[in-house]
Amino acid sequence: MNIRYPNGTAYHQSAKRPATTMSQTTNYGDRGMSLEAELNESNQYYLNQGVAVIHKKPTPVQIVKVDYPKRSAATIKEAYFRQPSTTDYNGVYQGYYLDFDAKETKNKTSFPLKNFHAHQIAHLRACVAAGGIGFAIIRFTDDVATFLLPASFLFHCWDDALQTDGRKSIRRSAIEAHGYQINPALNPLVPYLNAVDQLITATKK
Amino acid sequence: MNIRYPNGTAYHQSAKRPATTMSQTTNYGDRGMSLEAELNESNQYYLNQGVAVIHKKPTPVQIVKVDYPKRSAATIKEAYFRQPSTTDYNGVYQGYYLDFDAKETKNKTSFPLKNFHAHQIAHLRACVAAGGIGFAIIRFTDDVATFLLPASFLFHCWDDALQTDGRKSIRRSAIEAHGYQINPALNPLVPYLNAVDQLITATKK
Repeated sequence: MNIRYPNGTAYHQSAKRPATTMSQTTNYGDRGMSLEAELNESNQYYLNQGVAVIHKKPTPVQIVKVDYPKRSAATIKEAYFRQPSTTDYNGVYQGYYLDFDAKETKNKTSFPLKNFHAHQIAHLRACVAAGGIGFAIIRFTDDVATFLLPASFLFHCWDDALQTDGRKSIRRSAIEAHGYQINPALNPLVPYLNAVDQLITATKK
Repeated sequence: MNIRYPNGTAYHQSAKRPATTMSQTTNYGDRGMSLEAELNESNQYYLNQGVAVIHKKPTPVQIVKVDYPKRSAATIKEAYFRQPSTTDYNGVYQGYYLDFDAKETKNKTSFPLKNFHAHQIAHLRACVAAGGIGFAIIRFTDDVATFLLPASFLFHCWDDALQTDGRKSIRRSAIEAHGYQINPALNPLVPYLNAVDQLITATKK
């Protein structure tokens, strides 16, 4: 068998993809990690550096049946995924409460608002009303461009989409205009607190 | 059969208890709800009133096997409980980041420090260092007395317990002296944000 192994970076399903279809372009922004994995690494970096304490919340699960075998750990035998009532990430940075969700889209020119659930928007509104800083981290996977979008602008787009003739997505150009681009780095991979700094400064003006 | 039933307060399995042995004393502080259930209700009340956004984090679960039967929801068939890396509760109140854990003890005169895990204390320390407000809510179930204990005093006791001759528990008298008692109410059941107000005022002095 003449199997050729990839020597590029973005080779995800190596077992299923023939070597002849390897992408010829190397994308240095995405080496196979999801936005979620990159954010988790970034949060760990911020925690280790004593900069911020931000965690992704565990996936909520409704546990129905648990086995307690002798001499070993409890095993969950039946459980179901529950709808989360909040966003995925929250924590504290320089005394500020941060609350956000992270979303990826394959679209190139717009971000579909159906990526958000109504309860996530409601949660972000409540957080902002209680004095927290809310936002979304949005990535266009095609060119791995990542933006922090302030909650205020997200609410504006969400409310517009509820109108009969409202746009159901946010134009990328609007995200570029109203958001803050997060340039990838090494430590952390997604230095989104730089964008949070900009957001705090802009809010204070 | 002459089985005698207790007529104290901590008898929770009322369904199995014949009506003739009903407790003669009414304890308005504990109607069979756990501290966790009371806090969840209190947080829902605070959320509905627009006062604060505080949630208990889901129990972290390591999912190993999921079934996706046709026409029905995904069923988790094998999963294990994971050790949480944070405390159970966090959120935002008047722009402050709050982070805490809630613990009950049957002890009457002291609170054993083994109720806390080292990683919970480490997490609280990181939150306080990042500008958040950390504390513990401690309940003595015997007389249903509930206290908010500031993280600073908890750290002091924790560090002392690490000494060879250090106390491995916190005296109730010390909790009464360094904490803030939370008197039970109707709405919310555990009005702990009153104690947080006192803590904020004391910290600003």
